[in-house]
Amino acid sequence: MCRWLAYSGAPVNLEELLFKPQHSLVMQSKHSTMGATTTNGDGFGVGWYGAGERPGIFTSTEPAWNDRNLRELSAVASSRRVFAHIRASTGSAVQQTNCHPFRHGNWLWMHNGVLAGFPRIKRDLVLAVAPELFPAIEGTTDSELLFFLALTFGLEQDPPAAVARAVGLVEETARRHGIGNPVQMTVATTDGETTWAFRYSSARVSRSLFHSTSVSTLRHQYPDNPLLHELSDGARLVVSEPLGDLKGAWREVPESSCVAVHGAGEELSDFEPLAP
Amino acid sequence: MCRWLAYSGAPVNLEELLFKPQHSLVMQSKHSTMGATTTNGDGFGVGWYGAGERPGIFTSTEPAWNDRNLRELSAVASSRRVFAHIRASTGSAVQQTNCHPFRHGNWLWMHNGVLAGFPRIKRDLVLAVAPELFPAIEGTTDSELLFFLALTFGLEQDPPAAVARAVGLVEETARRHGIGNPVQMTVATTDGETTWAFRYSSARVSRSLFHSTSVSTLRHQYPDNPLLHELSDGARLVVSEPLGDLKGAWREVPESSCVAVHGAGEELSDFEPLAP
Amino acid sequence: MCRWLAYSGAPVNLEELLFKPQHSLVMQSKHSTMGATTTNGDGFGVGWYGAGERPGIFTSTEPAWNDRNLRELSAVASSRRVFAHIRASTGSAVQQTNCHPFRHGNWLWMHNGVLAGFPRIKRDLVLAVAPELFPAIEGTTDSELLFFLALTFGLEQDPPAAVARAVGLVEETARRHGIGNPVQMTVATTDGETTWAFRYSSARVSRSLFHSTSVSTLRHQYPDNPLLHELSDGARLVVSEPLGDLKGAWREVPESSCVAVHGAGEELSDFEPLAP
Amino acid sequence: MCRWLAYSGAPVNLEELLFKPQHSLVMQSKHSTMGATTTNGDGFGVGWYGAGERPGIFTSTEPAWNDRNLRELSAVASSRRVFAHIRASTGSAVQQTNCHPFRHGNWLWMHNGVLAGFPRIKRDLVLAVAPELFPAIEGTTDSELLFFLALTFGLEQDPPAAVARAVGLVEETARRHGIGNPVQMTVATTDGETTWAFRYSSARVSRSLFHSTSVSTLRHQYPDNPLLHELSDGARLVVSEPLGDLKGAWREVPESSCVAVHGAGEELSDFEPLAP
Repeated sequence: MCRWLAYSGAPVNLEELLFKPQHSLVMQSKHSTMGATTTNGDGFGVGWYGAGERPGIFTSTEPAWNDRNLRELSAVASSRRVFAHIRASTGSAVQQTNCHPFRHGNWLWMHNGVLAGFPRIKRDLVLAVAPELFPAIEGTTDSELLFFLALTFGLEQDPPAAVARAVGLVEETARRHGIGNPVQMTVATTDGETTWAFRYSSARVSRSLFHSTSVSTLRHQYPDNPLLHELSDGARLVVSEPLGDLKGAWREVPESSCVAVHGAGEELSDFEPLAP
Repeated sequence: MCRWLAYSGAPVNLEELLFKPQHSLVMQSKHSTMGATTTNGDGFGVGWYGAGERPGIFTSTEPAWNDRNLRELSAVASSRRVFAHIRASTGSAVQQTNCHPFRHGNWLWMHNGVLAGFPRIKRDLVLAVAPELFPAIEGTTDSELLFFLALTFGLEQDPPAAVARAVGLVEETARRHGIGNPVQMTVATTDGETTWAFRYSSARVSRSLFHSTSVSTLRHQYPDNPLLHELSDGARLVVSEPLGDLKGAWREVPESSCVAVHGAGEELSDFEPLAP
Repeated sequence: MCRWLAYSGAPVNLEELLFKPQHSLVMQSKHSTMGATTTNGDGFGVGWYGAGERPGIFTSTEPAWNDRNLRELSAVASSRRVFAHIRASTGSAVQQTNCHPFRHGNWLWMHNGVLAGFPRIKRDLVLAVAPELFPAIEGTTDSELLFFLALTFGLEQDPPAAVARAVGLVEETARRHGIGNPVQMTVATTDGETTWAFRYSSARVSRSLFHSTSVSTLRHQYPDNPLLHELSDGARLVVSEPLGDLKGAWREVPESSCVAVHGAGEELSDFEPLAP
Repeated sequence: MCRWLAYSGAPVNLEELLFKPQHSLVMQSKHSTMGATTTNGDGFGVGWYGAGERPGIFTSTEPAWNDRNLRELSAVASSRRVFAHIRASTGSAVQQTNCHPFRHGNWLWMHNGVLAGFPRIKRDLVLAVAPELFPAIEGTTDSELLFFLALTFGLEQDPPAAVARAVGLVEETARRHGIGNPVQMTVATTDGETTWAFRYSSARVSRSLFHSTSVSTLRHQYPDNPLLHELSDGARLVVSEPLGDLKGAWREVPESSCVAVHGAGEELSDFEPLAP
């Protein structure tokens, strides 16, 4: 499937974030250790917030590990909020419009997982997207469609509720088509100020998800770790798999839950789909 | 918009067909003289029939004029029936799934033109596609959607009637959305045995379309022309614009008509949309 | 051949610079009016200086007019010094390592033109590159090789003299191989502080080159022109062809000359090759 | 590094050859089991002989596992002699001109391995290429340069001797630069009639290499194996790693040896570099 990383905090250089950690996201594109696939080489994407409200997006169909532009961009760009994603396609075409993160206005969305039986339920799900949002769908993935369902159900007003309704609709639609356990997901979404990350699967066997703990505490524990000196006290990371093996640095996000990261604080809550 | 070429006849080498003519399709990718745009550099595609029933498809997002693989493939491949298309996007993404020709089973389809106001009518058109065909839509263009509407309306049984119904549906849908003159098209489709080419636009000001005349007659007239010696007596070409300025070699396909090419013969008929 | 643009001044948003002018560089990729070719669709590149000394480089083999990442990057990035180039290959492969601008340390280099008979003189020219610089050659173009010859001859110490020696060597080498009028070039190079632009050809029939005049004077003349309000008083542009038809805004760089732009001032001098 | 496959025999469909075996080359692009790297996703290439003497070449910078055109081409193309290669770059750029197999006239060449310290010895090696061959070098890899050295030393007349002299030159050049054990290689080359495959490394610890045994014997042993029914009696494969675990189907090529495959027969000989 895929791997992703969501950063928030004081502006950090993208090279420090994406390339330099011991088990960096770019390294995971070739050697993921906890993913459903070891290789995540079907394109990648980075979304980052700058001066304006609307984030920039850089996507490519090349593997992250050999993309020249990703290395160049990372060397010069810094950002206070970064979404980065490496893709292992579960069937849809390898093309830029299928690369995460997806964007709508000032929102970003990225997904690791799959909607089982997607070709059979896609038409019904497409019909459930608000007609005024429909023309903004650019690609053909299950992930982007889930984003547009969440937008339809009020993502911009109440993200946890909107995602719960989107997932509920997918499960109900799949049930009608005789597809069991349709949803497998870790999802991150942000409006540029708060990041919400979800870990859920219909079968309650979800892909791995972790968030970072307090940087200042860690810095006391590991005064010699270089990454910790790059990060601000308020820095927060939510990741598919830890970027290193520093003890105490990572906490698993529990099954069927949502973590909201705002400033230096995070709030954990249960996540349950809401049937339509 | 785009330019295309449909060949049928004795197997011809693709390099002879696509690169060598005086005003070849590959040259048109940079210097079209009759197209809506002089540059058709937003990808290209070639579909060709070999031993099996199902044609092969080679597509690329690179401009045709500088694609190494197109040149290589053309040098070695020969085929009795070839569809080739160079693209100038009217808005949808430049990606392989948006490159013509599109394929369904043993059928090919390619389009030059545009459905005006497509983002506003796309949802209604998508809903009109037969649910069992819906999952086979791979890209996001108006051209591919028109193909799937024609398939929905019986393209495989009666091509002219199916295209008439598809175009009629688009015009009716556009009317409901207050969009005038929605259809601009030259379309070619084939089942591997017969090619049907359509020239039509709602405003009756359609893009250019030509078919070749008898190769044997021309060969008597121009005994020194090398292309004519490459082509068999039964060879037939339908093209967006003539591949050279040989007098008598090209005949314009009239406005609002369909030409069916089967073997060395062609049959011209009127084309009128069929309202739903 | 190619088209390029060199900007210096207060930080300017890349979208304002590359996309918005009436006759922008991106538009020139499809419709150049003064170039040797109207289409410059064989890739492109942007080099821009940020916080560090080393500029970033973004290159692509796609045409500039349809590249999603160029549009994204341009929307978010601003820079005080920008080199941008759109390519029309004169024979070498369309690949990122052949895209301009080329970089060495904090230096950038881009070229419009061609070295005639390049395949025949390439080996001799490669041998003339300083052995310690040789491993840094990444691509296969005449343009990059000219850069490395200039570096060999002291570009970093005295740019006009180094370019004069590089060009002199090319002319002498070509003469030995019986190739007349080998050099056709407009070249721009910068260390991040000063830009030197050269207009020269062995036959004294060089490609077009222009530099902008005083922005503050223009702003008084054209109080309503939006681009002029984006640009700072000290902004300076050197371009293959004017970005608009504002009277008085552009001054042609004379045949066989070099213009050095430092801060808001520019200095014009004669350019003559220096035979080895 | 890389993985490759060389086929000769009655014309075989490329899909049968590249995709269908249990441990196919395309599968090795993601999951090589005997290679220096498990992922070989930095592009690929296929060279195949058709009607003419000059083979066609299809290369791409995409990973083989997700390339649409490779799948299409493989479905329709058949060939009596196929070279296929999946790349894991050891440093040079991921671009089509660096994809194997390389071609010169009717010859093909592909390489798995590396020349250690290549940036330091490249200039000397380039100078040793025959000046009349120099302009034909298209890319920047050690592999292609080794090909041109072999061509310089008479590959077209006596392949084993030419490769021995090329390798000898590399070892001598490396020694002068203080680089130990410079050569690591398995190489295949063909003129369209005979395939020569070499397994050698300066340290005598060479990458894996295997050739197939008699298809007719195997077919008696395994009457139900589908691949064996696709292959002709005279079919021969030389591969970096076996395409399946059929007992008796594969024989390791010994360290420091050359196997020449002509028709259904193969001839094994020792390989030793020849110092200049």
